[in-house]
Amino acid sequence: ADIEAGKAKTAMCAACHGADGISMIPMYPNLKGQKAAYIEKQLKAFKDGSRQDPTMAPMAATLNDEDIANIAAYYASLQ
Amino acid sequence: ADIEAGKAKTAMCAACHGADGISMIPMYPNLKGQKAAYIEKQLKAFKDGSRQDPTMAPMAATLNDEDIANIAAYYASLQ
Repeated sequence: ADIEAGKAKTAMCAACHGADGISMIPMYPNLKGQKAAYIEKQLKAFKDGSRQDPTMAPMAATLNDEDIANIAAYYASLQ
Repeated sequence: ADIEAGKAKTAMCAACHGADGISMIPMYPNLKGQKAAYIEKQLKAFKDGSRQDPTMAPMAATLNDEDIANIAAYYASLQ
């Protein structure tokens, strides 16, 4: 996975999950240092509807598998 | 919420999410320092089935609202 390419895709994520992966909103999770495999699984679940969330569904719909892997690698890399 | 009471309820969580909230399993999320409101929302979603997960459903089913608030406060408190 390409961490820099992932970072470049996170502008829309950062609005809620924070520029550094620390969410500014209590209801939204921190992503900083989260497991890449978990982030990847959840983004795919939001995309295919197996995890239902009205906010995340349209975000995930814009991402292909490569984007998802890169974004997951980026957040996992944050210390 | 009662952080110590929450900690006392996390023995079953720790098997997968780690004694310190850092998961030992790539597919499972870290919980250390996660937002309490987010953890609380997700535990309730696993319990009521609005978020479906065969592993988490039976875990969440054993928890009442007070347990959930305490567990969420405990993980949020970890630095």
